[in-house]
Amino acid sequence: MTTTGKQIFTTLESDGTLTVEVATSEFAEPKGNQVLVKMEAAPINPSDLALLLGPADLENAEYTDGKIVAKMPEPFNSGAKGRHSQRLPVGNEGAGEVIATGDGDMAKALMGKRVACVPGTAFAQFAIADASMCLPLGDVSAKDGASAFVNPMTALGFVETAKMEGAKAILHTAATSNLGQMLVRICQEDGMPLVNIVRRAEQVHLLQDMGAEHIVNSGEDDFMRQLRESIDETDAFFGFDPIGGGQMVDHCFKAMEQVAVSKMSEFSRYGSNQQKKMYIYGRLDLGPTILTPSYGFGFTLSGWLLTPFLQSAGMETVTRMRQRVLDNITTTFKSNYTKEVTLEGMLEKDAVLQYRQMRTGEKYLVTPHG
Amino acid sequence: MTTTGKQIFTTLESDGTLTVEVATSEFAEPKGNQVLVKMEAAPINPSDLALLLGPADLENAEYTDGKIVAKMPEPFNSGAKGRHSQRLPVGNEGAGEVIATGDGDMAKALMGKRVACVPGTAFAQFAIADASMCLPLGDVSAKDGASAFVNPMTALGFVETAKMEGAKAILHTAATSNLGQMLVRICQEDGMPLVNIVRRAEQVHLLQDMGAEHIVNSGEDDFMRQLRESIDETDAFFGFDPIGGGQMVDHCFKAMEQVAVSKMSEFSRYGSNQQKKMYIYGRLDLGPTILTPSYGFGFTLSGWLLTPFLQSAGMETVTRMRQRVLDNITTTFKSNYTKEVTLEGMLEKDAVLQYRQMRTGEKYLVTPHG
Repeated sequence: MTTTGKQIFTTLESDGTLTVEVATSEFAEPKGNQVLVKMEAAPINPSDLALLLGPADLENAEYTDGKIVAKMPEPFNSGAKGRHSQRLPVGNEGAGEVIATGDGDMAKALMGKRVACVPGTAFAQFAIADASMCLPLGDVSAKDGASAFVNPMTALGFVETAKMEGAKAILHTAATSNLGQMLVRICQEDGMPLVNIVRRAEQVHLLQDMGAEHIVNSGEDDFMRQLRESIDETDAFFGFDPIGGGQMVDHCFKAMEQVAVSKMSEFSRYGSNQQKKMYIYGRLDLGPTILTPSYGFGFTLSGWLLTPFLQSAGMETVTRMRQRVLDNITTTFKSNYTKEVTLEGMLEKDAVLQYRQMRTGEKYLVTPHG
Repeated sequence: MTTTGKQIFTTLESDGTLTVEVATSEFAEPKGNQVLVKMEAAPINPSDLALLLGPADLENAEYTDGKIVAKMPEPFNSGAKGRHSQRLPVGNEGAGEVIATGDGDMAKALMGKRVACVPGTAFAQFAIADASMCLPLGDVSAKDGASAFVNPMTALGFVETAKMEGAKAILHTAATSNLGQMLVRICQEDGMPLVNIVRRAEQVHLLQDMGAEHIVNSGEDDFMRQLRESIDETDAFFGFDPIGGGQMVDHCFKAMEQVAVSKMSEFSRYGSNQQKKMYIYGRLDLGPTILTPSYGFGFTLSGWLLTPFLQSAGMETVTRMRQRVLDNITTTFKSNYTKEVTLEGMLEKDAVLQYRQMRTGEKYLVTPHG
């Protein structure tokens, strides 16, 4: 017996036509340790947007009821040829009620429960999920539990990564995002010094109100001086950046090196011996990353993604992280949403143009049943 | 008792005036495990040029006997403010005869011997060196032993790094340099697959004559296809690049990812799980490194320098590497020189304009005593 419901699909044709639409799908019976979740809430995360919309021209797209047809510009269309003509479901995570299960014990134990899950198909009325990745929410509402995975585990993953690599402090750019605010709270709880880079005065105030100690405003003229000062105070030679393109990573490396050089007693043609590391974990800016030759050879730039991190961290660490999220889901790991939309509402022009900007405090929650 | 001799110094003033000149120096008596080496031969390595000349305007410089006065353009002058007004000696390595020693046993054992050394002041008639870093050359001439350190240990260091990190093959750009040719021979001896990227047809022939198996010509229209094919054949997801600026590293990452994606059974929005790593170890191009967002998050770009590598590799590895160099100094680790120059000859316009181009097969050897 299958279950019928609505689901969002995104399809990119080789000629650059992107179609995003609400369609009717048949959801198969769950097998083994799978569960079928009636999705009640799913956040629109930056990590969903690359697949859902990418850098398509949404200003000039055609919007009809529950459907967008837009043009994907070059070089992005050619760069995405791996997905050409594939009708792809979207939505990393969400929460809802388990309404059917496979015959595996883990799955059966979740029957009738409210869970957070990571199906990768969360923008839908129903989703098949692995029981092992579901988090039973108990009294926590679907809305409060919808973002229990991506942001909380990523923010915790940053702190775990820093500790594993022996970093004394963390630097974070675009620091007022939902994820950034979680990171502020986690670092406060763990006593990990955190340098927050933001770009507007009101973002400085937002983080100050949270009790953040080191806040640097890239919109101010003395940004580099502020940044050096914060690095000097914290020893933050290790950071995470969701912007990707442009020179933010370069600025961070440069400031780190200037702080390290200022502590050296004599000139070295090769720069300081201080190892400097930055991870890029997002692409808010799709332009190229620019690295200038101004900090010697003691730097490492790497990509950071949640799934490979969790695979390398091991089951024990992951279990501990998940428990911490569950215990603090309405406090440390709380997400805030500007607006709730249905699946159709998610594809309306005003909504799309707002949430694709990924601005601070403008996060959307999808409620597929209403 | 001091020893008097000629030595090259480079001085950059804060107004951007670079002066490189042959001057007379007093060399102090060696102490402890120091030795005083009468320098007979010293190579001009790319790693010397950054300090010696940097990106100064040498076309329009003033050349007088044993002296160059040139202008350092911005932003390089400001970027080098750590060295402003300092009169710096130059020359990483060379070879010569030990004519005086401190009273340490290691030093005394070298008295009268011909050694290769790494004083950092090799462009001089005499140099103080650490006995522990000297390599006794036995019957090997000073000319043959002059380049016993930087290139051989770097090329060996690449293979050691690859093995430590579990890489199955190595990719190398600008692969016909003296260092690149050593790497070809080492990889042949060690059975390590090597992808060589060159940019001209004659460089392809040079490496073919050496028996190199995988050669890719970036000057040809189907460069990316050649590169993908070589990566596919060797699994070279790990490489070293002395160029630094521009998009060569980006091309390598892109080709690596395309090969990895071609082996995937289904599309992933995050790209392949294949870890891709490139090390930048030089700056033949002083422009910024450009990284496009076209290979997901499974990449790492890092700087590589010999000294920190040797420190992390440990004494046992370093001793084994040095012995291998000494045993094969006229074969595997042989360097070729276009021209020999005196200290004064090294500062003549024709010479400077030639060796600063760092072209294949145009390496200079300095013979400080004429």
